[in-house]
Order: sequence, then structure tokens, then C-alpha cells
Amino acid sequence: MREAIVEVAQRLIIQQGVRATTMDQIAEALGISKKTLYEHFASKDGLVEACADAFLTQIERKLCEIRQTHTENALLPMIATANYIYTLLTSLNPILYTELRRVIPHARAQVLPRIQSIVQRQLALSVAQAVKEGLFRQDLPMDILPLWMSFVIVQVVLNPALAEQARKSIAEIYAETILLLLYSFTTEAGRRLLENYKSQIFQIYVR
Amino acid sequence: MREAIVEVAQRLIIQQGVRATTMDQIAEALGISKKTLYEHFASKDGLVEACADAFLTQIERKLCEIRQTHTENALLPMIATANYIYTLLTSLNPILYTELRRVIPHARAQVLPRIQSIVQRQLALSVAQAVKEGLFRQDLPMDILPLWMSFVIVQVVLNPALAEQARKSIAEIYAETILLLLYSFTTEAGRRLLENYKSQIFQIYVR
Repeated sequence: MREAIVEVAQRLIIQQGVRATTMDQIAEALGISKKTLYEHFASKDGLVEACADAFLTQIERKLCEIRQTHTENALLPMIATANYIYTLLTSLNPILYTELRRVIPHARAQVLPRIQSIVQRQLALSVAQAVKEGLFRQDLPMDILPLWMSFVIVQVVLNPALAEQARKSIAEIYAETILLLLYSFTTEAGRRLLENYKSQIFQIYVR
Repeated sequence: MREAIVEVAQRLIIQQGVRATTMDQIAEALGISKKTLYEHFASKDGLVEACADAFLTQIERKLCEIRQTHTENALLPMIATANYIYTLLTSLNPILYTELRRVIPHARAQVLPRIQSIVQRQLALSVAQAVKEGLFRQDLPMDILPLWMSFVIVQVVLNPALAEQARKSIAEIYAETILLLLYSFTTEAGRRLLENYKSQIFQIYVR
């Protein structure tokens, strides 16, 4: 039951944002009483936290799967990852980016740092292999790059102020950011491959 | 007199930070009474604002001068600018970066946006010429790039949390960031020039 609650709550939150999603709606969508709902989650805050947690765990699982599927070269899993995240960001109600900083309790303390650590781990995993294959520059500042990139994602890409001023969606800013950084990381050989792949980042596929 | 006050206050603030600099110290360093000081600036907040304003104006003037001095190619003024800012950031008391977000009144509302607009203007000026000379890629996303980069500077580079976690100075993070982005912007020809120049960003010259 707990899992079913999180699944339904997550779907509603993704569609309408945290504030607009009520415990009443969630109970109704599940066909259960509010009493039953509150037996599993003592507060909406707790349920929202469980949803964020489940959401990020799904993403991590998917990223792992992508790395295992695309083994032709080290650039391809990065393109596939970027395309997956781009599609995901496109599916979220934009209000969530604002709520991430303001409404969700502990968001700053838990969700944003977790996103940062996912970015850092992903980058560290990918870069070593890409350098080995001659696709990324050998002189990348690896002592700060994963941390630096995690700040770029959380403080710049997921920053509603930038999207608003740029009149772009956060998904578009994400994709442009990844492309800019891949252009920085790649060697001449890596760039030739990147030119072939880059349009795939912006494709939205039907899952 | 007003100018002399701002000059002395600015020097003290750069050395010791805003909070540690008192109106008493400033009056003493100028050899004037506190009464005279307060005739020119009704509050410390007002004086700090005037200092920030004068500081940023000096920077803008210097950047303009740099662009006029280095005309051999479009990359050189960018390297010289990066080296000037790197040296400048090295000379500031690091407490200022924290104070910029917390102590200085209206900092978020005035200083940070002004830094952002300087970055945007600089980038827009430089990129067009570099693209024309074949040193920067023609497919740079110019609709968002100046704004994007101004967010990277203010939200990532000047973010004390990143410097602290990376165990680097903000000046080093600035220089690494500029180098990463120049690697992204440049064409193959631009990269060859960049390889020649890049160590100059990190040189501290005596002014």
C-alpha cells in the first residue's frame, strides 16, 4: 500500500506541483479513506519527501541502466543520459522548480544535495572512460570538475530565475548546458563524434 | 572629500571585509572626525553601497581599457580580462564573498545584478568578434549564452559554498571556469591559440 500511495502521489505532484496536490486528492485517486492514508503517512510533508526520494532513486536506476546499454563508446551513454533527463524535465510541471526551493520541506537540505551527488557520481564515472578512449581532454581539472558541474546543474540549470529571464524551459537550458560542457570536455576526435550525436539530446521519445 | 572617503573605505573593506570595517576606523584613517564623516555619509550602509558602486565602475573602466589595448586577435583581450579578474579576486578578503550574500544591504538587489550585467555585456562584445575571426564556434547558443554565463559567475563561481567544498580559492575557481568555457567556445584554430595563452590567466602580476 505504501508503494501505491507514493506512486499515485508522485504522479499527481509531477502533473500539478506540490502545493496544488492535496491529501484529499491522493486518497480519492487511490480509492481509500483519508484515515487510511494518514496511517501510512502522518503528514503531507512526509509523503512528499518519500515521493522525492522514490523519484531520485528511479532516476539513478535508469542512469545505471543507460550506462550498461550503451557501451560502443564513452560519449554515447552521456548523450543518452542527457536525452533521458531532458525528456524527464520536459514532463515536470514547471512550478516544481520554484517549489523545490521554497515549498518542499528540507528540499535545500536533502533533495538538492542528493541531485548534486548524483551529478558528481555520474560525471566521475563517465569522464575517466572518455579520457581513456581519447574522446575527452586529458587536462580536465578533475579535482573540481564533478563538484563544479553539480553546482552548475543545481544553481544555474535548475534555477527558475534563469529560465524565466531567458524565456526558455528548464529542459532547454539543461540540454544547452550539457552541450556547452561536452564541447569543452571533448578532444578533436570527441567533437567529431559529438557533432554526429548532439541532435539526439533534444529528441523527446515516447516511453 | 567624498571621493577620498570612498577610496579609504574601499581599501579597508577589501582588506578586512565589511563587518570588520567600522566608521571609527575610516574616520581615523582619513584623519577626520566622525561628525565630518557622517556629514558625507549618513550611514555605514550608504558608504558601503558607494564603495561597491565605485569598485564596479573601476572594473568596468579597466575592462574597456583592456579591450582597447589588446587588438591582435579576439581571444587575447579575453585572456587579459580573465587574468585581471583573477588577480583582483586574489586581492579580496574571502569574507567578502560571504558578506556579499548576507551582510551588505541590497547586495542581492544591486551588486549581484550589476556583476551579471557586466559579464553579459563583456561576453556579447567579445564573442561576435571571435566568431568573425574563426576562433569561436559559429553555433554558440547566443540567445542564452551571455545570461547563462552571468548566472555561472554569480551563482557558481562567486558561491562561497563551492570554494569551501572544493578547498580552492574563488580566484582559482574563477580561472578554471573561464578556461573550461573558453575550451567550449573555441574552434580548432581558437583552441591552438588558447593552448598558447592559457597559462597567462593564472599569472599574478604586480600592479
